[in-house]
Amino acid sequence: ALREPSMGPVFGMKGGATGGGKATIVPEADINLHFTGDFAAIAQANNLLAALIDNHLHHGNALGINPKTVSWRRAIDVNDRSLRDIVTGLGGPANGLVAQSGFDITAASEIMAIFCLAENLDDLRERLGKIVFARNMDGEPVTVADLGVAGALTAVLKDALSPNLVQSLEGTAAFIHGGPFANIAHGCNSIIATRAALALGDVAVTEAGFGADLGAEKFLDLKCRKTGLAPDLSVVVATVRALKYHGGVDLKSLETENVEAVRAGMTNLFRHVENLQKIFGQKVVVAINAFATDTEAEMSAITEELAPLGVKAVPTTHFADGGAGATELAKVVMSEIEAHAAEKNEAPRAYADDLSLEDKAKTIVEKIYRGNVAFTGPAKKRLAQLQEAGYGDLPVCIAKTQYSFATTKLLGAPTDHTVEIREVRLSAGAGFIVLIAGAIMTMPGLSKTPAALGIDVTDGEITGIM
Amino acid sequence: ALREPSMGPVFGMKGGATGGGKATIVPEADINLHFTGDFAAIAQANNLLAALIDNHLHHGNALGINPKTVSWRRAIDVNDRSLRDIVTGLGGPANGLVAQSGFDITAASEIMAIFCLAENLDDLRERLGKIVFARNMDGEPVTVADLGVAGALTAVLKDALSPNLVQSLEGTAAFIHGGPFANIAHGCNSIIATRAALALGDVAVTEAGFGADLGAEKFLDLKCRKTGLAPDLSVVVATVRALKYHGGVDLKSLETENVEAVRAGMTNLFRHVENLQKIFGQKVVVAINAFATDTEAEMSAITEELAPLGVKAVPTTHFADGGAGATELAKVVMSEIEAHAAEKNEAPRAYADDLSLEDKAKTIVEKIYRGNVAFTGPAKKRLAQLQEAGYGDLPVCIAKTQYSFATTKLLGAPTDHTVEIREVRLSAGAGFIVLIAGAIMTMPGLSKTPAALGIDVTDGEITGIM
Amino acid sequence: ALREPSMGPVFGMKGGATGGGKATIVPEADINLHFTGDFAAIAQANNLLAALIDNHLHHGNALGINPKTVSWRRAIDVNDRSLRDIVTGLGGPANGLVAQSGFDITAASEIMAIFCLAENLDDLRERLGKIVFARNMDGEPVTVADLGVAGALTAVLKDALSPNLVQSLEGTAAFIHGGPFANIAHGCNSIIATRAALALGDVAVTEAGFGADLGAEKFLDLKCRKTGLAPDLSVVVATVRALKYHGGVDLKSLETENVEAVRAGMTNLFRHVENLQKIFGQKVVVAINAFATDTEAEMSAITEELAPLGVKAVPTTHFADGGAGATELAKVVMSEIEAHAAEKNEAPRAYADDLSLEDKAKTIVEKIYRGNVAFTGPAKKRLAQLQEAGYGDLPVCIAKTQYSFATTKLLGAPTDHTVEIREVRLSAGAGFIVLIAGAIMTMPGLSKTPAALGIDVTDGEITGIM
Amino acid sequence: ALREPSMGPVFGMKGGATGGGKATIVPEADINLHFTGDFAAIAQANNLLAALIDNHLHHGNALGINPKTVSWRRAIDVNDRSLRDIVTGLGGPANGLVAQSGFDITAASEIMAIFCLAENLDDLRERLGKIVFARNMDGEPVTVADLGVAGALTAVLKDALSPNLVQSLEGTAAFIHGGPFANIAHGCNSIIATRAALALGDVAVTEAGFGADLGAEKFLDLKCRKTGLAPDLSVVVATVRALKYHGGVDLKSLETENVEAVRAGMTNLFRHVENLQKIFGQKVVVAINAFATDTEAEMSAITEELAPLGVKAVPTTHFADGGAGATELAKVVMSEIEAHAAEKNEAPRAYADDLSLEDKAKTIVEKIYRGNVAFTGPAKKRLAQLQEAGYGDLPVCIAKTQYSFATTKLLGAPTDHTVEIREVRLSAGAGFIVLIAGAIMTMPGLSKTPAALGIDVTDGEITGIM
Repeated sequence: ALREPSMGPVFGMKGGATGGGKATIVPEADINLHFTGDFAAIAQANNLLAALIDNHLHHGNALGINPKTVSWRRAIDVNDRSLRDIVTGLGGPANGLVAQSGFDITAASEIMAIFCLAENLDDLRERLGKIVFARNMDGEPVTVADLGVAGALTAVLKDALSPNLVQSLEGTAAFIHGGPFANIAHGCNSIIATRAALALGDVAVTEAGFGADLGAEKFLDLKCRKTGLAPDLSVVVATVRALKYHGGVDLKSLETENVEAVRAGMTNLFRHVENLQKIFGQKVVVAINAFATDTEAEMSAITEELAPLGVKAVPTTHFADGGAGATELAKVVMSEIEAHAAEKNEAPRAYADDLSLEDKAKTIVEKIYRGNVAFTGPAKKRLAQLQEAGYGDLPVCIAKTQYSFATTKLLGAPTDHTVEIREVRLSAGAGFIVLIAGAIMTMPGLSKTPAALGIDVTDGEITGIM
Repeated sequence: ALREPSMGPVFGMKGGATGGGKATIVPEADINLHFTGDFAAIAQANNLLAALIDNHLHHGNALGINPKTVSWRRAIDVNDRSLRDIVTGLGGPANGLVAQSGFDITAASEIMAIFCLAENLDDLRERLGKIVFARNMDGEPVTVADLGVAGALTAVLKDALSPNLVQSLEGTAAFIHGGPFANIAHGCNSIIATRAALALGDVAVTEAGFGADLGAEKFLDLKCRKTGLAPDLSVVVATVRALKYHGGVDLKSLETENVEAVRAGMTNLFRHVENLQKIFGQKVVVAINAFATDTEAEMSAITEELAPLGVKAVPTTHFADGGAGATELAKVVMSEIEAHAAEKNEAPRAYADDLSLEDKAKTIVEKIYRGNVAFTGPAKKRLAQLQEAGYGDLPVCIAKTQYSFATTKLLGAPTDHTVEIREVRLSAGAGFIVLIAGAIMTMPGLSKTPAALGIDVTDGEITGIM
Repeated sequence: ALREPSMGPVFGMKGGATGGGKATIVPEADINLHFTGDFAAIAQANNLLAALIDNHLHHGNALGINPKTVSWRRAIDVNDRSLRDIVTGLGGPANGLVAQSGFDITAASEIMAIFCLAENLDDLRERLGKIVFARNMDGEPVTVADLGVAGALTAVLKDALSPNLVQSLEGTAAFIHGGPFANIAHGCNSIIATRAALALGDVAVTEAGFGADLGAEKFLDLKCRKTGLAPDLSVVVATVRALKYHGGVDLKSLETENVEAVRAGMTNLFRHVENLQKIFGQKVVVAINAFATDTEAEMSAITEELAPLGVKAVPTTHFADGGAGATELAKVVMSEIEAHAAEKNEAPRAYADDLSLEDKAKTIVEKIYRGNVAFTGPAKKRLAQLQEAGYGDLPVCIAKTQYSFATTKLLGAPTDHTVEIREVRLSAGAGFIVLIAGAIMTMPGLSKTPAALGIDVTDGEITGIM
Repeated sequence: ALREPSMGPVFGMKGGATGGGKATIVPEADINLHFTGDFAAIAQANNLLAALIDNHLHHGNALGINPKTVSWRRAIDVNDRSLRDIVTGLGGPANGLVAQSGFDITAASEIMAIFCLAENLDDLRERLGKIVFARNMDGEPVTVADLGVAGALTAVLKDALSPNLVQSLEGTAAFIHGGPFANIAHGCNSIIATRAALALGDVAVTEAGFGADLGAEKFLDLKCRKTGLAPDLSVVVATVRALKYHGGVDLKSLETENVEAVRAGMTNLFRHVENLQKIFGQKVVVAINAFATDTEAEMSAITEELAPLGVKAVPTTHFADGGAGATELAKVVMSEIEAHAAEKNEAPRAYADDLSLEDKAKTIVEKIYRGNVAFTGPAKKRLAQLQEAGYGDLPVCIAKTQYSFATTKLLGAPTDHTVEIREVRLSAGAGFIVLIAGAIMTMPGLSKTPAALGIDVTDGEITGIM
């Protein structure tokens, strides 16, 4: 079970998100672009709700909503920094109330999170109804159910909720369903897809985006907590190139052998592995995603360094060789699972539900990121309000850059860095609190030369993606 | 060949747009909601372009675009009045340039028009490249081709460009492809679908939205002009209820027999028929879409009144009886076509290409709407600029309310009314100039009790769309 | 009695507004800059009201004001085009409601008009209380008196309401008090100053800004109508240069003798004189403000041309010669007044109170500007609303460019031009309806090289004004 | 030498700022309202600059200013929260560039600071020229001198720069000149007024607003540092009521004798006194501003508590008794000055110029406020930029609430509180860096029942102020 790519990065950064080489899922172009329209449906539900909220205020505000408290944002599957912070309703009374609003990328919408966490259509409708989008004049939360449109939003999402079955080039079945980013959202494909995969196969493999500080933490603390699922084993994917980069080599020299740098960069990998082992009680195997320029010595260094932790590292060549290139990894994974079947951690999580919201943030920052947590004044105040208002039992979902354990681009295994929580958002329907750390944005921007400049249609075929 | 429904009205006004009773195209719910994702793809292309324009300005503005001239708006398939007039780029330098912008409903996007007017994928790419979205510091137009992203936009639209084949409940094939509204846009399905229908059937039937002052005028002056196509015959659909309404009966009494009112309301129908006959040289048949409460006397009145114009009126009962209810109409249509085969008007249009833009507007207002044209100061100035800049040969597409020949809700056949053109927009890729008349908006709003309040999912089925 | 200069033009266009040469009022720099602070007090009262309105909405809106109807704008004595159309209240709930607003130049504020039309402090307080700044949820007008702050605004204006006595270089007393522009406002100094001048002198001279189509029309239709005052005689000031310009000479050749052009340009002067004579029943004398480059032949041409109208033209050289240069004019004026003492028109106005608002506009446009009136849709609708709401008896104050009788820069005496009323504003406290015509703005902009670039302080003296 | 009141608080909170009872400076109403127009001139200069910047961008941007870096805000002497965060330039190209902007209260304008720190007209012009309002495309600062308008701004301020001489009810001369608030600005009257007072009297008394953590710190670290002046002695004013409040008594019970509470509240006073003594090396006398409800025992408690610090406390009754009520204080002050003449600290400041900007903030927070300093991410980054760009030698001016040593309303002498610096502004013309701490705003708001509701003009006199 995998996540669906967002068109934001497809037209932004170079490359799609359907794998590569012989390890590609197909139909590639379709999956990278609109696929089955699920993202569009999620954005549509999101924006229909926004329009219905504004419309309710425009037509007399029967629910007594305090217009200054409306926190619902809009969504779009485009990297458009200009839409982060906008004013709507200009041009006179016929255009509704003037309000400050903004767009997030669809992947960061609460609707996306709800979509991925819903067990079925009824649960989806229930969760949509619980979305809190404002407070009324008495300070009480106002929900989608209060507005009477949970049904309409469910209708928009109905077909999208069915998981999408695709295949690898070799015909292995895969579900692609849901696509929250792992930096600014919870980073896991839908529960429905995961359960389908578990039901259909002997072994179900899923992915959690970016580093284990982001994807894995959220997979375990959010998705597993909500569902009661627990993985038998975690595979951490490493590359010689990335380890050399963390070891201090600059981007242009990554293809030159440098065993010392690989060893130096292991501090980063050690921390990811340790976090999974010690905090979440996971069995871990490391997959070394091999590149043609990697040397035997470099890969051996990784294997050697990991041995003291009781962790096996297996080079894989699936890009070049397809399934055959990952057979050894599969064998090691299966033997590890069998060997440790009795030790499985049934509740792999970093903190208990009853810890305060502030302490949950503190726990993740100190234990996983190994930094010091800080809160801006408004963030601290908002967390206290939510704790007070009865949301204290919810887990937290930290939005943070994927480039480092820190909120800036600190390589390796930084300590003594500060992780500032600058904004807090309640996702009452999804069932968690989003904490935005550092300078990360819930709407990405485009680079000076976005991938869109290289994408075209030639002889009826799309070119330039990847 | 028909147009695809927009989700804006589906969640706004009561009712979908797939016909009704036994005259329904299926799969109904799918067609009314996301269908094959074409609208989402069009909005995506539209908004990707918006993001790429802002991104170009943000990263140094190599093309020397004058930021104050950027006229490209965003698109969304939701009735959201709050998005008509917005400010983007707030929140500091990282969020791009601050700018005034706005969203149109997807059906009014120039991309929708281009999509419907494109002959094939190459023509689509060519037209996308011709979109003019701003002027540079020297006052020259800046196009999508200049920005280098015509290919990327084409990639977004590639799959959507294939026409969608559906069927009626009785299994008659129908294409549903493209969906520009007939009030605020050009109101016709795609050329590709029309050509496919012409190629596959003996007779191809298509529709043009709202009154013949809007849909038919645009079908003939825009779609037929661009393609060289010309219809053999036009069917004008009338209802007894609507004629009584135009004859002065209030909405609550429409179900009571009132032959005098029907006759009084014929002024409206006469004008539609005359416009098609005299201005466009069309053969006309009138279909009376019968309701259970219509009486024989009322329907006969219509037939009688139309006889002097040489126009036959045929009652139809397709809602109740399916195809059988329209057989008589079909027969009359076919016999009229055969009878007049020699008289076909190969170039049915209200004005020649070389009339000035201002005179084109004047012609339509005076000859079709039978009113006096007026221009606001800025509209007059902009038209003169476009004429000067070489766009004078383009036809015009007037956005006007569908409730009347006028820009307000004047019933019957008003004369001496003023049609004020208040805004002018260049659609260089589509190949026409949009003139916005009266108070019409290119983004609709929702009513106090939008249809969304009644839409739900019950036992896995969508309910409340009818 | 004269108007006080605004700092907007002082730092914008070249030159102050205290006369020139030997015909200067002093202290010149003081009068051109802050003078006695009256403008600042007026802006302060204006902006205090804006803050109190927003504050009322922010703190629970006890008056039930419909926030979408708030029409009160802010004021500042700077030419700042960026403030014409703004959004306020961004940055979260603590910053009040988000709203669209704007600044007018202080000279165009309703407070300025009220200040100039108030007979005394009590009348000022009464008029301030009558300002309508919004409607409540039931559609009824909400006034400053309703808000309870007429007293506070009066306090802000109290000292400013005393007229300011200054003198010419030769010691002639002059009042400078109030400063509404004559294009975008009603263009006359305060009633209090005019009454003081009438009380203190044998003859009181006052001015009304720009052409007689603007300043004189408003002086007669607004100030005289409100006060019952009526001038004994009107002096129209002409220059040979301006007549040549209206006669078709370009700006660079105005200093070359061209009698034919003077005669050609007389069409403009004839119309001003005729309007005063025929529409307002005024005795008229023309003063020719002589420049060194004017020739005897040119000045004689003016005199000759005017003779058939029974109007005397008198060259004056007050710039070069001070009072002596205007003695002849004074003699002619006094003899004309005496000669025609019996014929004075006690109610010089272009239209009666009971004409509809729309017809008042029509009358001025047709009789004074000699054009055709047009209304944009929203303007027409708003006028009808105001007529309906009981404001039909108020006179109208047209904001129009000063460069022509038309709304564009048509020279001479244009006919067949259209004057489009695009916006309507109620000034219930001042007692008139403002109609904004053509492209005129109630907040001017600055040119590429504003006068500010040349203004400095050198050796403790201000340089560069004039 | 005193500061001039702002009309913001006059119409906001109850009360003017001209003293009270027999200790009032006159003309009271004039001073509280427009006075000599200095505030209006400062706002005018501020806003003229804003208009000139936008105008430069509008007309081609010859200086190559990066529009996203323009940091110059507008100013107005009204408490208007809606103007804190605004968007300007809406409504199309004729209205300039769209930009995010905001208004500060005039008292917080950099022009106010420059006005108060200027030694003379030349220095004023020089400092105005040094204002940095943006960066160009190469990242270099752009100044008012670059824009060529330092002279024009000086002209606007010329007359205002002369200090205003007023008097107490008993005829004692006083200068009132300049009025920066002590919470959000540097809190001291003009240098010109202070120097005039020093030149004219044997002893010059001046005030520094709010608590000694704000006014006194800024007086010493900014005004004294810039001028080389140093006070002979500092008088700290205390009230029994305030001490009881800091001692835990609620607002309604402040008039009941409570000696224990007075003693408990002394922690607050101790800290102010200690800060002046130990950090700035000041001689200190405490004035007890006596209220009718204060008891002998309460006042004695203050005296007793202060004795161990070597500080004399003197009750004063100037409100009730005028000068006679402060004679004893004056005697004590003079004798202390004479007794310690040899010990004067010629450079009373909390930190040296060469400390880094971040360390300057840290020093004030830790030594004066006794809290922990924190910086939001953007603030930290901006400080580093300014340090890098060569502004590291400037002192810092912290904007912080006046209600506490902390950034929240912590009474007494709080420790372990965090002072978060959330925004950094360069005042290159004034010569300091403004650090905004906690939730303080540079534009105040109005309360639900602002003083304006009670202000009126009755029989020609202003009522309701104080």
